[in-house]
Amino acid sequence: MNYDDNNIFAKILRKEIPSHVIFEDEHTISIMDAMPQSDGHALILPKEPSVNLLEASTESLAHCMKTVQIISRASMKAFEADGIVVRQFNHEPAGQTVFHTHFHVIPRYEGIPLKGHGVEMADGDLLKTHAEKYLAVLNG
Amino acid sequence: MNYDDNNIFAKILRKEIPSHVIFEDEHTISIMDAMPQSDGHALILPKEPSVNLLEASTESLAHCMKTVQIISRASMKAFEADGIVVRQFNHEPAGQTVFHTHFHVIPRYEGIPLKGHGVEMADGDLLKTHAEKYLAVLNG
Repeated sequence: MNYDDNNIFAKILRKEIPSHVIFEDEHTISIMDAMPQSDGHALILPKEPSVNLLEASTESLAHCMKTVQIISRASMKAFEADGIVVRQFNHEPAGQTVFHTHFHVIPRYEGIPLKGHGVEMADGDLLKTHAEKYLAVLNG
Repeated sequence: MNYDDNNIFAKILRKEIPSHVIFEDEHTISIMDAMPQSDGHALILPKEPSVNLLEASTESLAHCMKTVQIISRASMKAFEADGIVVRQFNHEPAGQTVFHTHFHVIPRYEGIPLKGHGVEMADGDLLKTHAEKYLAVLNG
């Protein structure tokens, strides 16, 4: 599958469209998922273009996991989460909707079921508040 | 959370209890999930002991991802899967049932819903057949 340079995450990485960035290093960026399955649902994207995990470089995936861990730990603190689910989808039948490799970090809260994947757009102000919670922990 | 050296994956890593091993390198092992959510559902375990991703070393997670990619690619071929979901659970409220870090590689097939997580034990002969499919691709 060819990488389409105009996918939404490529545009976010080029800052052509806005997002709530909570973390950035040389190889990765982390943003709030615009359709969160729970409060604090974040995405980790490698800067290196690849369609999905099947085609990404080993190095790029290692960089992603480092950031997944940073965001997961921050999520436990910032949202007082009871646990974290990490999810990563490859190809449309598996639930992939944007064809730039990405990892979901989804906080879980005791007794609260997850919302559907990519179902409901969150309020922008709420996402901003959640991003600020992350930033307070990550930069605190 | 303290690491319990008698968890089932620690025992599998010490070969004290049997499993269907499909891949092993210096840092990781991959086995068939005994309660598969789809045909070909595999697990990737780091050899380094850690409770979950929140507590694992960065190196250990990088090694895991390398094997996750190897198994995901093999899964697409061996099972003619239409996609792959990677899942990783941290703490009980998030669905973690064994407290040794592990990643799920779950093949998806168009129009076939996933079975529940950790619900139904698979037939041993079926798992053996599935392990052989992986081995044919990985060693072929």
